[in-house]
Amino acid sequence: MPLWNIYHPENAYTDADKREIADRIVGFYDGFLPRFYVNVLFQPLPAASFLIGGEPTDDFVRIRVEHIARQIEDPAEQERFMNHVAQRLAPFIGERGLRWEMHIGETPFGLWTISGLKPPRPGTAADLKWRTENRPSPY
Amino acid sequence: MPLWNIYHPENAYTDADKREIADRIVGFYDGFLPRFYVNVLFQPLPAASFLIGGEPTDDFVRIRVEHIARQIEDPAEQERFMNHVAQRLAPFIGERGLRWEMHIGETPFGLWTISGLKPPRPGTAADLKWRTENRPSPY
Amino acid sequence: MPLWNIYHPENAYTDADKREIADRIVGFYDGFLPRFYVNVLFQPLPAASFLIGGEPTDDFVRIRVEHIARQIEDPAEQERFMNHVAQRLAPFIGERGLRWEMHIGETPFGLWTISGLKPPRPGTAADLKWRTENRPSPY
Repeated sequence: MPLWNIYHPENAYTDADKREIADRIVGFYDGFLPRFYVNVLFQPLPAASFLIGGEPTDDFVRIRVEHIARQIEDPAEQERFMNHVAQRLAPFIGERGLRWEMHIGETPFGLWTISGLKPPRPGTAADLKWRTENRPSPY
Repeated sequence: MPLWNIYHPENAYTDADKREIADRIVGFYDGFLPRFYVNVLFQPLPAASFLIGGEPTDDFVRIRVEHIARQIEDPAEQERFMNHVAQRLAPFIGERGLRWEMHIGETPFGLWTISGLKPPRPGTAADLKWRTENRPSPY
Repeated sequence: MPLWNIYHPENAYTDADKREIADRIVGFYDGFLPRFYVNVLFQPLPAASFLIGGEPTDDFVRIRVEHIARQIEDPAEQERFMNHVAQRLAPFIGERGLRWEMHIGETPFGLWTISGLKPPRPGTAADLKWRTENRPSPY
C-alpha cells in the first residue's frame, strides 16, 4: 500500500518514463511511509480493449489507487492531495495530450500484511525503523 | 467511473463484441452520467492463470466494477440494477455457454478526478455541461 | 468472490504452481464457501512495469483480494486469517526468496451476482445446495 494500477495505451511510456512516474508517486508519501510501501504497476492495453464512453481509445490513462495505511478523510486535504498528484503527473499525461482519470479506494488496516507481517502503526518505533531501513522486519 | 474490469478467456471476444458490450454498459448509466465517465477494460487470461474453484478455466468471465459518482444503497434498486446488467449482457455470456460472476465496489467521491478536475456534483449546471459536451471542462 | 488478483514476476510460477496455490487459497474458505466462489487470477508483469519503492522489481508478489460474501471484522480473527494465509503460501513466496504484500478489501453483498443470480445468504438451504453441488442454481 498504496497500490497504484496504471492502465495506459500501448507504447505510451518508456521504461525510463515508468521509473520517473513511480519516483514521483513515491514522493507523494515521502516522510510518512517507507518507500517500499509504494507499489506502482503499469498495464498496457490495446485500443480495442480500452473503451471510454463506448469508444476504443488510445489516448487515455486510467489510474486506480488503493490506500490502506492512512485514510484521507478531510475534504480539503483530499482536494490538496488530488491536486498535488495532478500537478506532478501532468508532464506524463495532460502535457502529452493524454486524457486521464484517477480514483482512490480505501481498505481495512487489519487485512493487510507485508511479507507476512502486520505493518506497524504510524508513529511507532517499529514504523520509524521500517521507514529508515526501507524494509520490513519483525517487531 | 464507473470502471469495469472484465477478465475473460483468450479469444472469447472479437473487437466488435467488445464495442457492443461497452456500448451496453454505457447504456446502464444513460441519462445520468456523461458517456466518457464509463471505462471498460478487457483483460484476457489464459486458462492456466484463471482458476475458478482451484481449476484452470476457459469458460468464465469475471467482472469487477467500481462505482464512485453514485452509490446504490437501496436493496431493491441494487437488485434491479444487477438484474438489468445480467439481462443486457446475457448474449455475450450465458448465451455463449460462459459462466460468470460480477461484483461492484464503491469508493469515495472526494478521491476522484478526471483530467485533474473534481467531477461536478450530480444535478449541477457543470454536471449537465459535462454530460452534454461529453468531455470535462473547468467550472 | 473471493477474488484474488496475484501480480507476480514473469516466470515466477509454473502452471502446476498456479494450481497448487489456487488449491491452497480454496482451502482458506473450505467448509463455508462453495469452491467455485474462489477466483484466482495470475497476472505476470515485467520488472520495468512492476515498481516497488520506485525501483523496477523482479522479486515481488502483490496480492489484492476482494471479499464480498463474508466480512471479517474482529481484529483477532483478521490476524488469524492473515497469518494462516502467510503460512500456507510461504512455500511459493518467502521460501523462494520473493518479497510480498497482500491486502483485502470488502465490498457490498447486494452488488454481487454469480451467473446472474444473487448468491444465497450463508446458512440457508440454497447456500448448502450451492456448496454441495459446487455450482449456482435458481432458488
